[in-house]
Amino acid sequence: MKNFSITGIYTDLYQLTMAQVYFLTGKSHLHCCFDYFFRKLPFEGGYAVFAGLENVIDLLQELHFSKDDIDYLKDIGLKREFADSLEHFRFRGTIYAVKEGEIVFPNEPILRVEGNILEAQIIETMLLNILNFQSLIATKAARMKSVAGTKTLIDFGLRRAQGTGGYHATRAAIIGGFDSTSNVKAACDFGIPCVGTMAHSFVQSYDQELSAFRDFAANRPEHCVLLVDTYDTLRSGIPNAITVAGEMKARGHRLQGIRLDSGDLSYLSKHARKMLDDAGLHDVKITVSNQLDEWVIKSLQDQHAPIDIFGVGTSLVTAPPDAALDGVYKLAYADGKPRIKLSENLKKITLPDKKQIYRTYLKDEHHFDADVICLQDEKAPSVMHHPFEPDKSLSLTGRKQEPLLHLVMQNGKRGNTPIPLKDIARYTQKRLRMLPEEHKRFHYPHTYKVGISEQLRHERDELKRLHKP
Amino acid sequence: MKNFSITGIYTDLYQLTMAQVYFLTGKSHLHCCFDYFFRKLPFEGGYAVFAGLENVIDLLQELHFSKDDIDYLKDIGLKREFADSLEHFRFRGTIYAVKEGEIVFPNEPILRVEGNILEAQIIETMLLNILNFQSLIATKAARMKSVAGTKTLIDFGLRRAQGTGGYHATRAAIIGGFDSTSNVKAACDFGIPCVGTMAHSFVQSYDQELSAFRDFAANRPEHCVLLVDTYDTLRSGIPNAITVAGEMKARGHRLQGIRLDSGDLSYLSKHARKMLDDAGLHDVKITVSNQLDEWVIKSLQDQHAPIDIFGVGTSLVTAPPDAALDGVYKLAYADGKPRIKLSENLKKITLPDKKQIYRTYLKDEHHFDADVICLQDEKAPSVMHHPFEPDKSLSLTGRKQEPLLHLVMQNGKRGNTPIPLKDIARYTQKRLRMLPEEHKRFHYPHTYKVGISEQLRHERDELKRLHKP
Repeated sequence: MKNFSITGIYTDLYQLTMAQVYFLTGKSHLHCCFDYFFRKLPFEGGYAVFAGLENVIDLLQELHFSKDDIDYLKDIGLKREFADSLEHFRFRGTIYAVKEGEIVFPNEPILRVEGNILEAQIIETMLLNILNFQSLIATKAARMKSVAGTKTLIDFGLRRAQGTGGYHATRAAIIGGFDSTSNVKAACDFGIPCVGTMAHSFVQSYDQELSAFRDFAANRPEHCVLLVDTYDTLRSGIPNAITVAGEMKARGHRLQGIRLDSGDLSYLSKHARKMLDDAGLHDVKITVSNQLDEWVIKSLQDQHAPIDIFGVGTSLVTAPPDAALDGVYKLAYADGKPRIKLSENLKKITLPDKKQIYRTYLKDEHHFDADVICLQDEKAPSVMHHPFEPDKSLSLTGRKQEPLLHLVMQNGKRGNTPIPLKDIARYTQKRLRMLPEEHKRFHYPHTYKVGISEQLRHERDELKRLHKP
Repeated sequence: MKNFSITGIYTDLYQLTMAQVYFLTGKSHLHCCFDYFFRKLPFEGGYAVFAGLENVIDLLQELHFSKDDIDYLKDIGLKREFADSLEHFRFRGTIYAVKEGEIVFPNEPILRVEGNILEAQIIETMLLNILNFQSLIATKAARMKSVAGTKTLIDFGLRRAQGTGGYHATRAAIIGGFDSTSNVKAACDFGIPCVGTMAHSFVQSYDQELSAFRDFAANRPEHCVLLVDTYDTLRSGIPNAITVAGEMKARGHRLQGIRLDSGDLSYLSKHARKMLDDAGLHDVKITVSNQLDEWVIKSLQDQHAPIDIFGVGTSLVTAPPDAALDGVYKLAYADGKPRIKLSENLKKITLPDKKQIYRTYLKDEHHFDADVICLQDEKAPSVMHHPFEPDKSLSLTGRKQEPLLHLVMQNGKRGNTPIPLKDIARYTQKRLRMLPEEHKRFHYPHTYKVGISEQLRHERDELKRLHKP
């Protein structure tokens, strides 16, 4: 981990062995296009939030193979002439993508890489690794935000994160709607508000809980949040916090809040609120933590638990029960021709050629309810077909339509100015407001319609016929 | 991600704000001990594999705060005198731990940090982040190994890993029993065999599957594994692979294998084996991949599917449905006194003081079936008590017992020579063979007994009484 950095070998070996074959057979410069898409929404939910794009662009701009990388590849049997050629490897391809923070759905070509087959192949693993994970976490965070409403959400996840994955998890959490984090490294690098309270060990290191609270308050008078469940929440922690709050007031300070980290958070928050209010401490906020997820937050909200701040760890940054978005990267075009991958499972047959996605709006023009995938150069289609059921179609005549794929990288150079994380997060919330409610509920959400154009359907079906033995 | 490295700010903010209070109140040098332990076994399994220790030791030896880190901490409001003092921060503590690769159980103090409270607190998040994750993945891998038997297991997970978490996931997979990986970066840094096959895109980039196979075979004659499901496994992929195998043979080469990546892997592997055998290709191996986990591998084995190699991705490196080990780091001793954390939930009351774990063997002396936690300086106890049920105890008289905690770091310096990954993996398999079978089954495994000594029980109960309000 000394200076771990993502270089060209942050990939699967087969990308490099395939690249070697392209290199040795003179196919390196074959022009091709790959689509990034996923097949299944995580959490049995109704939507996903696309995240990770800005990091991918940054990484691609500087991706290279170090001398050590090249030596290693020779050691494990790659051909000298190919391995040496990687010294000059730079990604010079072109990328179209939906905006980072966009609301996306299964089978949509969210991002397209155009380039020579060698570069497009080598970057596959890194691109999937970053986009799959950040989109997963941004989606999980958005679900929590959807039930937390205007209450504050803090990421407390680093200790339970999947190793250094916790770094980008925090970034993705902000995109999904979180307000701040306890993760100092991520806060520093991504410009996220960094917050924290206190741990049980602080209290335990004193002989008396009250002395611990007093020392903390004296030294953190501006940001004092006291953890009240080390020994007994209602009989010791909160009474001691109230004592300290009074002492702080007398010195012109204010106790910012208390944190509950165990027990029944609905029951305890109600009692805590009453005890604080009875002591005139109406502005002391209640933070809760301990195994929260979107379901627990929803339940606490449904019970009108007087909680101001939710601190979410494990479930946010590791996103159980799914823990992964099944995003793939499939060849759609090569050597001047559209390409297809067949499967016995109809849903796994890929959509060939260079494509565009149009988002289609309801009459009010403020909500969208269907996306149509078409060929890149088509106009916004007037009808869309169900991708697998030949008899189902939907007329789009007269509907407002908006293309979703934009140029973000051209010949290896960033095609846009870097977008601040805050703006991405704001865009996500804006787009979520435009998604009808029935797609956002947790139980059996309404399926968002994603169709294909007449021309795309025709092209896919022709290719299917061509390749069926 | 430019040169991402783990420095002192790879932590939760509260570690630093608490450290600041210790610093400002003159408590920085308070001697204390923290235990690392977890409460619940992942996957409803019967054991866990401890992993990540060597990385933690390496990181602790060089942990420091950079100038930029310190500037950032001042920016977000930490006091100048404290932030500046971090320039000289080095971890100078002492660590006792079970061996990396050890089989471990809930509530055992697997690792103990002794040091001043400031350093011990600051490293908490990093230590939990690494140990929780690698132990989770090593455990998942060990479950797969337990059903794969002598068949080969390959990690294909990087593309679905939780961001850069995939790096250490690969390391942990090897500890749990995997043979190799497709992850080039991890293979390079950790000295793991690196392997790979081919992707659908390679086949798709040619007009004919057969031409793709021929080019690959011609350029990878020593390591040729052909992916046979791009268009039609039984009618196109395998027949074409057999053709190419024949052509390779004629040139004095050998087709190494084929890979199945979709469809019913039991059905297809049986048909593939027969087709290959009928063509005299008995030594061509069958690799399978596609959403494998320990349950699918077990089912394929139960069906006697003639598979030689399992390529496992998502489920290995992200470990659903749990996705996290709930490891915690709790203060057990400070300022010359044992410390406790109480809870309404009996199981969450911590074990105070500096402790040792003894592993207790069955009569055969080749299998262990109980561990007892005692005070550090006790002799191997002759009786152990159930931690929560006062009436349950077990006599250990005459049993072979083995202390599990060893010194691994002393005053900030590594206490052992670095252990090669291969040796850790070998140790895991050795220890797993010593664990009786009933703890290894997937469904309702037998609960491994973890008890506490008479002295430890007495000390805990005294402290409980002391702190109950």
